[in-house]
Amino acid sequence: MEEDKKQVIEENAKKIKEKIKQMHDNQDVEEAKKQLRELLVSLKPWDIPLIEQSLIKEGTTISQIALMCNLHVELFREHVLGGESLKGVPAWHPLDVLIKENHQLLKDSEKLTLYVKYLDNISTEEEKNRKIEEIKDFLATMFDLKKHYFKQQMLLFPYIERRGITAVPRVLWAKEEEILDKLKDSMREVKLDPDIAKLKKNLMGLSTAISDQIFRETNILYPTCWALLSEGEWVAIQNQSGLIGYYKIDLPSNGWKSEMKAINPYEVEEAIKGEQLSKLPMEVRNSMSLVGMDNYTPVKEGAFKLDMGYLSIEELESIIKTLPFELTFIDGDDRLRYFTNNSNMIFLRTESTIGRKVEFCHPPSSVHIVKKIVQEFKEGKRDVAEFWINMNGKKVYIRYFPVKNKKGEYIGTLEVLQDITSMANIQGEKRLMDFEN
Amino acid sequence: MEEDKKQVIEENAKKIKEKIKQMHDNQDVEEAKKQLRELLVSLKPWDIPLIEQSLIKEGTTISQIALMCNLHVELFREHVLGGESLKGVPAWHPLDVLIKENHQLLKDSEKLTLYVKYLDNISTEEEKNRKIEEIKDFLATMFDLKKHYFKQQMLLFPYIERRGITAVPRVLWAKEEEILDKLKDSMREVKLDPDIAKLKKNLMGLSTAISDQIFRETNILYPTCWALLSEGEWVAIQNQSGLIGYYKIDLPSNGWKSEMKAINPYEVEEAIKGEQLSKLPMEVRNSMSLVGMDNYTPVKEGAFKLDMGYLSIEELESIIKTLPFELTFIDGDDRLRYFTNNSNMIFLRTESTIGRKVEFCHPPSSVHIVKKIVQEFKEGKRDVAEFWINMNGKKVYIRYFPVKNKKGEYIGTLEVLQDITSMANIQGEKRLMDFEN
Repeated sequence: MEEDKKQVIEENAKKIKEKIKQMHDNQDVEEAKKQLRELLVSLKPWDIPLIEQSLIKEGTTISQIALMCNLHVELFREHVLGGESLKGVPAWHPLDVLIKENHQLLKDSEKLTLYVKYLDNISTEEEKNRKIEEIKDFLATMFDLKKHYFKQQMLLFPYIERRGITAVPRVLWAKEEEILDKLKDSMREVKLDPDIAKLKKNLMGLSTAISDQIFRETNILYPTCWALLSEGEWVAIQNQSGLIGYYKIDLPSNGWKSEMKAINPYEVEEAIKGEQLSKLPMEVRNSMSLVGMDNYTPVKEGAFKLDMGYLSIEELESIIKTLPFELTFIDGDDRLRYFTNNSNMIFLRTESTIGRKVEFCHPPSSVHIVKKIVQEFKEGKRDVAEFWINMNGKKVYIRYFPVKNKKGEYIGTLEVLQDITSMANIQGEKRLMDFEN
Repeated sequence: MEEDKKQVIEENAKKIKEKIKQMHDNQDVEEAKKQLRELLVSLKPWDIPLIEQSLIKEGTTISQIALMCNLHVELFREHVLGGESLKGVPAWHPLDVLIKENHQLLKDSEKLTLYVKYLDNISTEEEKNRKIEEIKDFLATMFDLKKHYFKQQMLLFPYIERRGITAVPRVLWAKEEEILDKLKDSMREVKLDPDIAKLKKNLMGLSTAISDQIFRETNILYPTCWALLSEGEWVAIQNQSGLIGYYKIDLPSNGWKSEMKAINPYEVEEAIKGEQLSKLPMEVRNSMSLVGMDNYTPVKEGAFKLDMGYLSIEELESIIKTLPFELTFIDGDDRLRYFTNNSNMIFLRTESTIGRKVEFCHPPSSVHIVKKIVQEFKEGKRDVAEFWINMNGKKVYIRYFPVKNKKGEYIGTLEVLQDITSMANIQGEKRLMDFEN
């Protein structure tokens, strides 16, 4: 480095350090922030990493430097997080929430590079362990990344797939998988006594992968969704986002609200219009399938709308009969009303018992227990009663549950019988990826 | 014993032994049987046990003596197994089948008394073990007794309960439980090195209990059913008897047949008529509840007739949601059509995926496996695909099954997710009788 450039860096590092200290010590925070922002704007972007390195060398802690990073990211936010194509996204709109998460992610991606530099200056084993521990704690906070990606995979993708844009979601999902794998790898690395060079490489790779993905989302996914999705679709996305959760942001109670009815992907019937097409990023337009609009509907003739989905009676019964369990249902009048008529029942039940009082279905010696359990279910005093027996070499697990309707009222008791003989053999893991034959 | 009586016994025993030997050696079997029958008729019933004892002393084997028992029971069948009140029961009618089983049971009950005498003459340890082994084998054949009782509990009782006769089935079931307990006790006894006196007492008690029960069935249960049940009800009983099985009898292919439509207990609407009442045994008339006819019907408005029972859509869905499993259903078009919307899902699923192509619901890295499994299900090449993973400290068991309609056609794929973390703790037994709180 030329001597005068080095001097500039050192001088600026010193000034930044002062401001950070002020902010950290809560002295004139707003004024310090303002001055720091001005300082940062005056610097060349490629000087920032050098300044960071200098600060670390001088012993400034990562959490202090992070204050600067946050400001830095905020300053460059406009450049990185959406330009013209995302104009007009209201504050706390579900898309704005995703952008805000990316804002957090970008900060964390930058923090990862700080940690890499941080690992350069290790003199003792004790220092090494302390720094590793710090990185481990930080990585642990990053696992919520899954929530950001899961929202995209489950809430955004279906809406654009519906419109025939199927390749882009696949590519993005593959990248998201890679990033999560990298995060897991780094986590695994810091848990053991790590090879510092390897760890640095992993952290750096993770940081780059995350910021690259932010770039893709900002320039491809978000503009596409913003151009295509109607307000009702965003309402549906908003409703379901809360189930999944967020990456390091808290939603205000008075955020974006819409009176529109939520629209599910299968309810979207209008194909992409010409004016929308022109707003789509080039990458999307180039990759659009020739298949076009997906017109599938789960709302079939004879299908009932259930809590989550649509099924016909034939499907419902076939599903229940497919279950590797034996079910018997006693209705609200304590009558046996239904059982799954499987072949090879563990407990043989016959048609002649349909409509029979439950107290007559059991031997006199145990009927008082059955009545007690049902009574406790009715009174809401009990959620389950479980038993297990050995029968003809089988381990049989028997559970009783109260069945409640949507209003939470007792409408019957369900007996669930399961052969759990082979469960003892379930050890370790067998994942989808381990599937052979 | 007076000397002349003893002589008569010995003489008769000798004659009987000859005939049995002839039958056993397959010499003039019919003639020998005829002569033995004449001989047995000429004897006083109370002499029979003494003759049996004499035969055992002389070394005649139990299986040879059993030939005599069978004939003896046949001779007295009319007296023991149904008199006037069961007149007209056609051969191999389901009631006749129960009577025939009792015929077999009566023989076995008598055989048990023979085994008791058999245990009187033990000189060596080896002889003891051999005899015990023989008794063990015989007791093992008696466990089908459950089938005789189960047919009564599940097929006969519901029809008379329907008509307000509820006390009699309860008493009979309690007796049946006692008998099965006695059988289990005896079995347990012979499996260990048994106390001969105790074993003899057990076997004798079992024998008496069985023949007493035959008496109750013959004089109370069967006449009641015969007086009350219509032909369609017997058709239903016949149809279901085969599922349960029989006690030591084989049904001919050309047995009783009726063209009547099977009638389930809940379909019986006519109360007991005056003329029927007069045919009921006194015990039944005295015990009849004042409640009278049971008019419950499972055929409710809005309920669908399922393979076994009746349920409304609300009940069906509430049952599925009660299951301690997470279900996801992909339809025949490979679309996600339904999932159980439980709170605290192990795998979070969102409404936005309803109608989504299954291949878009999985990460790109594993989608080819999902497609392969579904394809194998469609082609009927596979019945299940199972996986297990550890997730947030939970052991999660994931199974996929093909769903088929009544015609056996593929209509979709079902994913069943189960938290089996606590299954490892299931050891030994916890029976209904062990229920405390």
